[in-house]
Amino acid sequence: MIYLDNSATTQTDADVIKVMADVMANVYGNPSSLHGLGVKAERLMEQARKIIAQELAASPQEIIFTSGGTEANNMAIKGVAEAYQHRGKHIITTELEHPSVYDTCKQLEQRGWRISMLPVDHLGRVSPELVEQSITEDTVLVSVMHVNNEIGTVQPISEIGKRLRRYPKVLFHVDAVQSFAKFPIYPEQWGIDLLSVSGHKFHGPKGIGCLYKRKNLQLTPLLAGGGQEQALRSGTQNLPGIVGLAKATALAGKQRDAFMERCRAWKEWLIQRITAEIKGVRVNGDVTGNGGAPYILSLSFPGLKSEVIVHALEQEGVVVSSKSACSSKKEVPSRVLKAIGLEDEAAVGSIRISMGLMTTEEEVRHAADALLKVIPSLQQVIKVRKR
Amino acid sequence: MIYLDNSATTQTDADVIKVMADVMANVYGNPSSLHGLGVKAERLMEQARKIIAQELAASPQEIIFTSGGTEANNMAIKGVAEAYQHRGKHIITTELEHPSVYDTCKQLEQRGWRISMLPVDHLGRVSPELVEQSITEDTVLVSVMHVNNEIGTVQPISEIGKRLRRYPKVLFHVDAVQSFAKFPIYPEQWGIDLLSVSGHKFHGPKGIGCLYKRKNLQLTPLLAGGGQEQALRSGTQNLPGIVGLAKATALAGKQRDAFMERCRAWKEWLIQRITAEIKGVRVNGDVTGNGGAPYILSLSFPGLKSEVIVHALEQEGVVVSSKSACSSKKEVPSRVLKAIGLEDEAAVGSIRISMGLMTTEEEVRHAADALLKVIPSLQQVIKVRKR
Ligand SMILES: Cc1ncc(COP(=O)(O)O)c(C=O)c1O
Ligand SMILES: Cc1ncc(COP(=O)(O)O)c(C=O)c1O
Repeated sequence: MIYLDNSATTQTDADVIKVMADVMANVYGNPSSLHGLGVKAERLMEQARKIIAQELAASPQEIIFTSGGTEANNMAIKGVAEAYQHRGKHIITTELEHPSVYDTCKQLEQRGWRISMLPVDHLGRVSPELVEQSITEDTVLVSVMHVNNEIGTVQPISEIGKRLRRYPKVLFHVDAVQSFAKFPIYPEQWGIDLLSVSGHKFHGPKGIGCLYKRKNLQLTPLLAGGGQEQALRSGTQNLPGIVGLAKATALAGKQRDAFMERCRAWKEWLIQRITAEIKGVRVNGDVTGNGGAPYILSLSFPGLKSEVIVHALEQEGVVVSSKSACSSKKEVPSRVLKAIGLEDEAAVGSIRISMGLMTTEEEVRHAADALLKVIPSLQQVIKVRKR
Repeated sequence: MIYLDNSATTQTDADVIKVMADVMANVYGNPSSLHGLGVKAERLMEQARKIIAQELAASPQEIIFTSGGTEANNMAIKGVAEAYQHRGKHIITTELEHPSVYDTCKQLEQRGWRISMLPVDHLGRVSPELVEQSITEDTVLVSVMHVNNEIGTVQPISEIGKRLRRYPKVLFHVDAVQSFAKFPIYPEQWGIDLLSVSGHKFHGPKGIGCLYKRKNLQLTPLLAGGGQEQALRSGTQNLPGIVGLAKATALAGKQRDAFMERCRAWKEWLIQRITAEIKGVRVNGDVTGNGGAPYILSLSFPGLKSEVIVHALEQEGVVVSSKSACSSKKEVPSRVLKAIGLEDEAAVGSIRISMGLMTTEEEVRHAADALLKVIPSLQQVIKVRKR
C-alpha cells in the first residue's frame, strides 16, 4: 500500500513508538508530584520542551503542550480574545484557514466579535498589504496559517509579521500544523506571537501538540484546573506524548533538507507527467517557483467525483484523500477550493496527494502510473454516460 | 519501590502499552478519512467507544473522547453554561471539587455567573438536601464529584440525582475521574447528565479521557474545528489513546470486585495499625462502614510537614503524596482538608496513600512498617526542637 495522505495524518515513526512505550512502562510518575518518580517525569518533560523550543529558536517557557493542533488554535484565538477584549473585538483571518481557526472565529462572531475573513488570490495567497489595510482601532489579532492543508500554498508569514510590527497592539497567530518540522520557522524573527503545532502531522504521536506563546503575552486559559503549563493549560501532562513529540521533531529536523528537496523534485515531476497526459486536469495552489509546500499536491479533474477517484486509486494500492480528512465525509465542495476560485464542478473532483518522510521515489512513480490509468478510464465512463 | 500514589497517576498496564504500540504501528489512518486505512481506524475507535459505553451502561454515541479529565470537566461545565445560559446563570457545586471543576466555576463567576460552593461535613460529604435547597429559578447545573481525590470520600451521587429528577431543567455533572472503572456507575439510572473520565487514573494512557453526555443534551463545544465527535470535540482523534483507554477499562472492569475487596481490607488494617501505634494521627475523610473509597487513605500528622514525610518515606522506598499531585508544589494548606475542618497545622502535615490494581499486600505491609518507623522519629525531632 502506498500511503500518500500524510497531510491527514502520518505513520508514527518506529523510534517514536519505542520511546513512548519506554516512557509508559518506566516513567509513569506525574510531573507535578514531589517524589522521585515525579521529578524524573518532570525532567524528561523539560528535556522535550527544550528540543521543541530549539526547533523554533524559542525558549522552553514559550512552549505550552496541548492535545493537538485544534486545541492549540482554539486556545490561541479564544485565549487572546478573552485576555485582550478590552482593546477591541476585531480579528483578521483568511478564507483559507483550517476549520479549527475558521470555526473558532465563527464562534467568536456569535459572541459579538467582528471577523474579517480576507480573500486570497487564485493561488491561495493572502496579500500582506490587505492584512495591513484591514487593521482598525479595535483589531486584536491576525491569524494566518503557514502552509495550507488542502492545496499547500505557503503564506507570506514573515512579511505579514514585519508589517504587523508597526502595530504592537495587534497580535499575530500562525497555524503551523502543516509546516512545523518541515519548513524552518523563526517566530521571534518573523514577528509571530503565537504558533500552533500538532504531532501526528510529522510522524509523531496523535493527541499531542503545542502552542508557542511569546513571553509576556497574556492568554486566558481554555482549560482551568491544576495549573500545569504555567496555569495556561491545566491537566496532567501526557508525558509519553510529549516525549514522542520531541523525538519526532528531532528526527524530522535532521531529515528536513533532504526531504524537502526530494519532494520538490517529485512534485515537479508529478505535475509535468500528469498535466502532459491527462486532459482537463487542474493543478491547485501555488506551484510557481518555490511557492507551494513541496509535499502537498492538489489536483482537480472536472467532471469526476473525488470519492470515486479515491476509491479507484485505492484499488491500485494508492491512498490519497478527497479533501482534508476532517471534511472528507461532508458532501459539500471544499471551502478552500472555492476560495481560490474553483467552480463547484472542479472542486468536487479534486484530490490531494501528500507525501511524508517515509514516501519513496518508487511509490511516487507507482502513484503516477495509477493516476494515469485510473483517471482516463473514469473520464471515459463519464463521457459514455453523457451520450 | 512501592508506588502508593495511584490517585495522582498510575503505571500504565503492560497490555495497554502493547495495544497502543500496535495501533501506532499498524492503524495510523485518520478515522475521518474515506479510504480503507481511515475506515479501519474508525472501526477500532467505535469498538473502543462501545467498551467504554458498556462500563457506564450507556450507548456509544453518549461517549465523547477528550484529552483527559480536566478537558472533560471544563467542557461539561463551560459547554452547558454557554448552551443553557438563557435559562439562568447559576451553578451549584461543592467546596471539595478538583481544581478543574472548582477553577472552571471561578472562571464563570468572573463572567457573571453565580456559583454556590456548598460546604461539606467533617467527613467530606455534601448533603443532598442542601443541594436541593440551593436550587433557584436560574440554576442550570449541579456539579458534584463522585470520589474525592484527596480524602476518598464518596458523595451520595445517586441520591442527589434522584432529587434532581424533580427539576428537569437542572443538569447534573459528575466528576468520576477517581471512581470510573473502580465503582460501578450508572448515569442513566442515577440521573446523571454528564460524567468525566480520565484514562491515566486506572492504568490507562495519559492524555486521553472522555465525557459521558446524555442523549439530546445541548453542549457548546470548547474546541471548534473539523467536527469530530459529533462536532462536540474537534481535533484528529487520538486513536492509540482511545484504544488504550478501552483496554484499561475492560481490564479494570474484570478485576474490580477483587480489587475493591482487597483495598477495603488493607485500608482497615492500615488505619487500625497506624492509629494504634502513632500518637496524634488523624484519619481524614469518610471511613465509616463502606463510606470512603477503599483505595484512598488520607492521614494527618499535626506538627509535621507533608513534604518532609513524603521524602522520609521515599528513603524507605515508599512513594506517597503530600496532597493532590497538581497542587503538590503549592505551599498552601489543601483547600479540601480545610473544607472538612482541619486546622492549618493538621492540613500541612497530611499525606495521601493511594492504591492501584498493581498494589500487593506485601507492599501495603511494608508501607505500614515504613510509616511506623518514619513518623515517630520525625515527631521526636520536632519535640526535641521545641524544647
Ligand atoms: C492546517 C491545520 N491546522 C490544524 C489542524 C488540526 O490539528 P489536529 O487534528 O491535530 O487537532 C490540521 C489537521 O487536522 C491542519 O491541517
Ligand atoms: C477528581 C479529579 N478530577 C479531575 C482530574 C483531572 O484529570 P486529568 O489530570 O486527567 O486532566 C483529576 C486528576 O488530576 C482528579 O483527581
